[in-house]
Amino acid sequence: MTHRIGVADTMFARVDMFKIVKKAISDKGVGIKLERYTVPGIKDLPVACKKLIEEIDCEIVIALGMPGPEQIDKQCAHEASMGIIQVQLLTNKHILEVFVHMDEGKDDKQLHKITYNRTYDHALNALKLLEGKEALSKKAGKGIRQGHKNEGNIKE
Amino acid sequence: MTHRIGVADTMFARVDMFKIVKKAISDKGVGIKLERYTVPGIKDLPVACKKLIEEIDCEIVIALGMPGPEQIDKQCAHEASMGIIQVQLLTNKHILEVFVHMDEGKDDKQLHKITYNRTYDHALNALKLLEGKEALSKKAGKGIRQGHKNEGNIKE
Amino acid sequence: MTHRIGVADTMFARVDMFKIVKKAISDKGVGIKLERYTVPGIKDLPVACKKLIEEIDCEIVIALGMPGPEQIDKQCAHEASMGIIQVQLLTNKHILEVFVHMDEGKDDKQLHKITYNRTYDHALNALKLLEGKEALSKKAGKGIRQGHKNEGNIKE
Amino acid sequence: MTHRIGVADTMFARVDMFKIVKKAISDKGVGIKLERYTVPGIKDLPVACKKLIEEIDCEIVIALGMPGPEQIDKQCAHEASMGIIQVQLLTNKHILEVFVHMDEGKDDKQLHKITYNRTYDHALNALKLLEGKEALSKKAGKGIRQGHKNEGNIKE
Amino acid sequence: MTHRIGVADTMFARVDMFKIVKKAISDKGVGIKLERYTVPGIKDLPVACKKLIEEIDCEIVIALGMPGPEQIDKQCAHEASMGIIQVQLLTNKHILEVFVHMDEGKDDKQLHKITYNRTYDHALNALKLLEGKEALSKKAGKGIRQGHKNEGNIKE
Repeated sequence: MTHRIGVADTMFARVDMFKIVKKAISDKGVGIKLERYTVPGIKDLPVACKKLIEEIDCEIVIALGMPGPEQIDKQCAHEASMGIIQVQLLTNKHILEVFVHMDEGKDDKQLHKITYNRTYDHALNALKLLEGKEALSKKAGKGIRQGHKNEGNIKE
Repeated sequence: MTHRIGVADTMFARVDMFKIVKKAISDKGVGIKLERYTVPGIKDLPVACKKLIEEIDCEIVIALGMPGPEQIDKQCAHEASMGIIQVQLLTNKHILEVFVHMDEGKDDKQLHKITYNRTYDHALNALKLLEGKEALSKKAGKGIRQGHKNEGNIKE
Repeated sequence: MTHRIGVADTMFARVDMFKIVKKAISDKGVGIKLERYTVPGIKDLPVACKKLIEEIDCEIVIALGMPGPEQIDKQCAHEASMGIIQVQLLTNKHILEVFVHMDEGKDDKQLHKITYNRTYDHALNALKLLEGKEALSKKAGKGIRQGHKNEGNIKE
Repeated sequence: MTHRIGVADTMFARVDMFKIVKKAISDKGVGIKLERYTVPGIKDLPVACKKLIEEIDCEIVIALGMPGPEQIDKQCAHEASMGIIQVQLLTNKHILEVFVHMDEGKDDKQLHKITYNRTYDHALNALKLLEGKEALSKKAGKGIRQGHKNEGNIKE
Repeated sequence: MTHRIGVADTMFARVDMFKIVKKAISDKGVGIKLERYTVPGIKDLPVACKKLIEEIDCEIVIALGMPGPEQIDKQCAHEASMGIIQVQLLTNKHILEVFVHMDEGKDDKQLHKITYNRTYDHALNALKLLEGKEALSKKAGKGIRQGHKNEGNIKE
């Protein structure tokens, strides 16, 4: 069976994040068709995700964005996130939000690395979520971070 | 009659919170079936809770999360909370949000203890809410805290 | 005709606010049946209010809560308020939110007094709203405060 | 044809804002019937507006409020505004929000003046919006302020 | 085939932003009919956009606004943005939000220039989005800014 995964990306981002998803799926996915939707900025992502689900029949969506470093950009990211959560509630489908804030990296090189890792890892998470609700359970509670070093599990 | 309680947890959390729910239910619950749903992070919890209710027929859900200490983590927690409230309004089911902020404890040991107590107590609250709308009324107005010392009742 | 008024309260609050509503209704109300719903904390109030309206047929609801003094408590109150407004829009029923912030009083005695007055006054407001949309109009624009001294009307 | 305009006001406000709407409509409106709905505070306005539209058949609503000067009051105003926007989206009707913050005026006299002007002007805007979607277009982009001096248009 | 593009603008803005959309469409668009809706301020935009889509059958909408420099204006912009995202989710249509904050330019001249560029560019983005979900894909991940200098793509 072919799974259809939606990928929404933006002109605003400074890294071609879609390409990273494509790489991850090509490395690890089998029988996956990617559907891309490009919009100007992150606030345009929620409706693009909804259209990928409702009009293009995607089972899951990866929303790719790169908010800028200013206060206003943080607010845009917040608004986009609220919208992305709403789309999930309206459709009962997961949307994995992959936002990399431009001030997360100390330079372009590091920013690219964080972006690569987070995007790649979330593409794999999407594959797992398609397998079912407990497919990620063995990784639960382990302080796993996408794009940064894992923090690990705390035992009693 | 068997009650079905949903438990949504995350890979991001640093404590295996699901295990604590399981312990509480095993200590105090009778005829309860737990249904687990694991997602990457707290912003993925709302739709997981909704699916537990609508697709797995859970009567009540416990949403387990452990937001990080940074400002962005606080914002994610806020967005997740708004989504969790919305799911409750869309389904007329309770979702007990058990969020432990990583900066609540002064070290890992204390963080684990707060997490244990809050999660355990809310699992018992879930059992009570299944009994009906006044099952918790004798505890009302008593300054009860899950995970911290109770503050107690103020009389005239 | 008997009116059914819902009252949602929390374990978190430090004052038995339900008792104050009961006193106010007993002092001034005629033909009123109170329906109580107790939940752990304020974020559990929105769905409790919705269930009081939709499952218990309450015509109006009083939502009682006592947010703590920390920033996180303020955020919980904000999230609860947003949910309470949404329930009203989904049901076309009023929900009078009676939130007393723990840092409103300089000591327990004053906090109790504010809580008593605000809760009592809003219970009476609920009775008035049941009478119709202009029942409170003669009090409009007069700077009326529940739990604090009224500020009064400003004339030209 | 008679137009029905809803006016929702509060006990919290310190100016009788309804009276100002009445004056504006009496000065400039023809064939208008005002429907009033008074609630305790601004967070009660959204559902009152919805009921004016859905139960009293108002074509447009003016929501009158006067948020206090504290941080908590600003948050209440934000919550009320979010609710008022939602009502508009649920009903496809305009609700003109006339909020005057108590710290906008340096004294009661100035506060009254701002309130008078903003309320009066928005009552006229409501009349215009009833005429159609381009009735205000000749005033677009001109930096028009209700209650304060207009800022004017910037040309290339 | 004629496409119908909605344009919602405000009296509050200090630049005639509609005129800029008209210029862009006249320069680059073929077979486009513009439908204008003017409202007092940005918080009135969401319902105007919804009416343009649902009552006037616009396929896409451009929402033009110019938030003031104060904290309260930032909050209004946030509320308007949340509403605009909601309208998109309710209608499955794009609404390109073109907000220019009055403090973005160091003087009127610069503010006008930013406004002109951002509005013009987003009008062209609207035309592209009408072509389909991948029409903007060749511009993805390139750090494109409307109204400011592009930031460019970061490669590995």
